[in-house]
Amino acid sequence: MASTTEPWRATVLTLFPEMFPGPLGVSLAGKALASGLWALQARDIRDSATDRHRSVDDTPAGGGPGMVLRADVLAAAIDAADIAPDRPRLLMSPRGRPLTQSRVVELAAGSGPLIVCGRFEGVDQRVIEARRLEEVSIGDYVLSGGEIAAMALIDACVRLLPGVMGKLASGTDESFSGSLLEYPQYTRPQTFEGQPIPEILLSGDHAKVAAWRQAEAEALTRARRPDLWAAKQAQQRTGQKRPKNTTDG
Amino acid sequence: MASTTEPWRATVLTLFPEMFPGPLGVSLAGKALASGLWALQARDIRDSATDRHRSVDDTPAGGGPGMVLRADVLAAAIDAADIAPDRPRLLMSPRGRPLTQSRVVELAAGSGPLIVCGRFEGVDQRVIEARRLEEVSIGDYVLSGGEIAAMALIDACVRLLPGVMGKLASGTDESFSGSLLEYPQYTRPQTFEGQPIPEILLSGDHAKVAAWRQAEAEALTRARRPDLWAAKQAQQRTGQKRPKNTTDG
Repeated sequence: MASTTEPWRATVLTLFPEMFPGPLGVSLAGKALASGLWALQARDIRDSATDRHRSVDDTPAGGGPGMVLRADVLAAAIDAADIAPDRPRLLMSPRGRPLTQSRVVELAAGSGPLIVCGRFEGVDQRVIEARRLEEVSIGDYVLSGGEIAAMALIDACVRLLPGVMGKLASGTDESFSGSLLEYPQYTRPQTFEGQPIPEILLSGDHAKVAAWRQAEAEALTRARRPDLWAAKQAQQRTGQKRPKNTTDG
Repeated sequence: MASTTEPWRATVLTLFPEMFPGPLGVSLAGKALASGLWALQARDIRDSATDRHRSVDDTPAGGGPGMVLRADVLAAAIDAADIAPDRPRLLMSPRGRPLTQSRVVELAAGSGPLIVCGRFEGVDQRVIEARRLEEVSIGDYVLSGGEIAAMALIDACVRLLPGVMGKLASGTDESFSGSLLEYPQYTRPQTFEGQPIPEILLSGDHAKVAAWRQAEAEALTRARRPDLWAAKQAQQRTGQKRPKNTTDG
């Protein structure tokens, strides 16, 4: 699609390029991809192997199970991608800093990241340092590789790109905007298995609805995420505000 | 594949069954799926819609942007899946309790979960309560739907199933076993862009290598994840141990 400005772009380095776009080619992200609102390139790390076996990994120095992705091969793959210097270079890894919605907002506002998907026991530390890779974790669990983690990060970014969610501006009231989990939702039918929709939601009193939702969101956050609640209280005490989500209405 | 015992099974309820197996059909999880070490069923929630438009969602009671998945349609989809009562029923949602490696270990040790993938603004609260869905979050960011989150959870479980990682037992030293991030890894070549592999790793002194790795893992965890480090210190003070990862060495 011809365009005067480049769309947001994700460049993925992986040993399994056939996994992409995968779920990113369907639904919200897939429609946006097809209409040129963002671009995706999956590059095979193995194309940068130099020996006749096309090997990309070797045993860990010092012993231990599994295989480690070679520094020289991955560095060559990163260099061959030839990305603009302003684009972030991420490595999906359980050792990374936890991904947050505010980091997603930053990444969506930029021109789009290079994302290295780790496999095996890990990646040689020297290439992480030499190519200044930012290690990012999507959560405190271990995956078989970085590909599904990269998909999560890309999906979270793409839905915030201009034009993707359309006029709904569905980002406004969702979890983590305002540091709270989202209040409970209800829709028709009015009675489900004997349970009615809470009366206040049908009252038409917008102020009362808003107050009820705020109270529910606070109660849920305190109960389920005392960590988020404590962080919010600390911010309020110091008068600091969370950075505003720039793409939300 | 005929088998005397049922393999571990993930039953996914989604509006986009065509997303599955997707990345779960490739590499480690894909090979294990093909060889019958686990099973995957993706069921279309829309098959449980009852009106002629096959509608699954409606506007939020009390107003607000987006659409909410209907309680009656989702309840019918859950009931139609007819899963055994001992299987966990999960709803992927940013409102959920954060997924951890110890919960992954529990889920992998069971017979496998039913996983509901949310879409739109959310899911009617009444079906979450009536069908006792356990809300699970893969991290503090918002996805366009629960499908990629479900893939992350399934991938994390599948790699722990007997026979999937083989004899490598690669789970032993990884991040979160022992509450620490993983130490840095190195492999050949011995020098990369002027940087050698740390000498101690080539010493052949297993005790010294183990001590160096432990110190590196501790330093990394303190620097990057003061939350994990504090939790580990608190556990040591009270003499508690984290539940042992039953599938690791």
